[in-house]
Amino acid sequence: MSRAGGQTIVYENPPVIAAHRGVAGRKEGQGPLAEWFDAILEDDLLGQKSWELAESEMVRRCARDTLDAAGLSAGGVDAVLGGDLNNQIIATTFAAKKLGAPFLGLYGACSTFVEALTLGAALISGGDLRNALCCASSHFCTAERQFRFPLELGTQRPPQASWTATACGCALLSGGGHGIQVTSGTLGRVIDLNITDANHMGAAMAPAVFDTLTAHLTDTRQSADDYDLIVTGDLGWIGRDLLLQLCRKAGVDMPADKLVDCGASLYSQAQDPHAGGSGCGCVASVSCSWIMKRIESGELSRVLLSGSGAMLSPTSSQQGQSIPGICYAVSLEGE
Amino acid sequence: MSRAGGQTIVYENPPVIAAHRGVAGRKEGQGPLAEWFDAILEDDLLGQKSWELAESEMVRRCARDTLDAAGLSAGGVDAVLGGDLNNQIIATTFAAKKLGAPFLGLYGACSTFVEALTLGAALISGGDLRNALCCASSHFCTAERQFRFPLELGTQRPPQASWTATACGCALLSGGGHGIQVTSGTLGRVIDLNITDANHMGAAMAPAVFDTLTAHLTDTRQSADDYDLIVTGDLGWIGRDLLLQLCRKAGVDMPADKLVDCGASLYSQAQDPHAGGSGCGCVASVSCSWIMKRIESGELSRVLLSGSGAMLSPTSSQQGQSIPGICYAVSLEGE
Repeated sequence: MSRAGGQTIVYENPPVIAAHRGVAGRKEGQGPLAEWFDAILEDDLLGQKSWELAESEMVRRCARDTLDAAGLSAGGVDAVLGGDLNNQIIATTFAAKKLGAPFLGLYGACSTFVEALTLGAALISGGDLRNALCCASSHFCTAERQFRFPLELGTQRPPQASWTATACGCALLSGGGHGIQVTSGTLGRVIDLNITDANHMGAAMAPAVFDTLTAHLTDTRQSADDYDLIVTGDLGWIGRDLLLQLCRKAGVDMPADKLVDCGASLYSQAQDPHAGGSGCGCVASVSCSWIMKRIESGELSRVLLSGSGAMLSPTSSQQGQSIPGICYAVSLEGE
Repeated sequence: MSRAGGQTIVYENPPVIAAHRGVAGRKEGQGPLAEWFDAILEDDLLGQKSWELAESEMVRRCARDTLDAAGLSAGGVDAVLGGDLNNQIIATTFAAKKLGAPFLGLYGACSTFVEALTLGAALISGGDLRNALCCASSHFCTAERQFRFPLELGTQRPPQASWTATACGCALLSGGGHGIQVTSGTLGRVIDLNITDANHMGAAMAPAVFDTLTAHLTDTRQSADDYDLIVTGDLGWIGRDLLLQLCRKAGVDMPADKLVDCGASLYSQAQDPHAGGSGCGCVASVSCSWIMKRIESGELSRVLLSGSGAMLSPTSSQQGQSIPGICYAVSLEGE
């Protein structure tokens, strides 16, 4: 058994990230992380006739470029693991169709990318797969009309609302070769502190992030000091503050300067993204560019990457249900 | 590496199904498989105030009873793997919240249950988990209003439409102990032969089932003769015929008397389910009761269980996109 106990798997044969790509939309490409992305879309419609097809095309291109960087054809991929926010994860499914590789569809809302890394690393470590392409995407225009309102309405958003990023991230995990090692993964439980405001994702997810981060540190007998950076995705500015409050209240040492949130880093406040970025693609894109490149350059050595999702649907919200959150985490280590 | 090559994983340490439960709704409990189910709902609303909450409660009860049968508490479960047809898989998420165990949300439409078995078995075989509760559900009333029309409209259905089963199935996979062995799993590719009729799921999925079944037989160097039964879920009567046609056309030997479809077995024609049963819960419930009990009794020795899903969303259909299918398969062997 390679489990550390609790919710954490310590991978016996840690896979490496053989290649990774972070793609950003136009607005995201005008933010503080612009220089880090591997590609910035000039047109968020990508020449397609719908936003949904555009999101799918973004995934396909990002996946293909990741495979190209690893010198692999789609036929050499044992499995694609991933998903997106669209109902029935159609963006990823239609991209997986074009790739032609075996596909494992996941849904963890904005936690999907780290869910994919956690699972993919386990499957490779256990010898069941040789490699796995982990991916997640989101698109502002597909998410707005599905979860909130048609864009054409120009609906005003409350200040605690997050901005769904148009972005995609892909990481190719491999059982051999060089790259960042994925050494452990912590599974998430569904945590619900009874937040019912569907515009307040940071508040809905912070308790789940707290639960998974503390489970990880406890399971692996570590503290925040053992990591150079603890990355969350995507709490936004408000959610990040709430996480720090939860840590303080519980007496968990979490230095604020070590806690970096992808959603709170993707945009500048001047871009008016309200509470910050969100969406499956935000943590995927930011971690596959900004975070992984800094590990590869040696600036960072050990990073705990977490991804959290708000598992609501418009139906559950309309029925007055609260918003459960979930969070997964993987530890990434430089060579 | 424990892979047989191609899309198939031959599990080095085959997990066993330590406990399993198949639950059916009222209509399903009046069909030909009534005597096999572990529970039949008296009321499809289960005392809840919405169909969505009822579906979630059905999952929770089925999961709890499965754990009880295995003598396990929710705290002893390493992970719950599963999903359902509701947007953002809320039925399973809300059930997982009440269980409190780590949760890995999956989406493979009606293939979700076998996707969960394939993944869960790999995670246990590789030593990453000690056990995994695999589950999937569907509910006629939640699916109708989400994918088709509000029930209150009484919309007429074309003859090729399938009937979404109100049903749930749970199987507890374990790394030790007695039970049916899960010896191999075949991952599915997204296959699309350009079916655009969202009422014709059998036609949309049959090519994916053909692809996965032939991949499984090729990868493991077996023929249909090596299995007592080849179970599909859920093609319905029309989809099953189409699968047999595809096999004949490709020269793949698939004896009709060996091919049993869960959707074509759940209802009698007299119950007017049109093309047969469908929904994540159909293959989950039927395989967790009818199929697994017959393996345990010794009537069946080796069964290939496949689950297929139509990966459409109302949005993709309304945008004129075709309906891609996907199919996973696991081989089950009696002790």
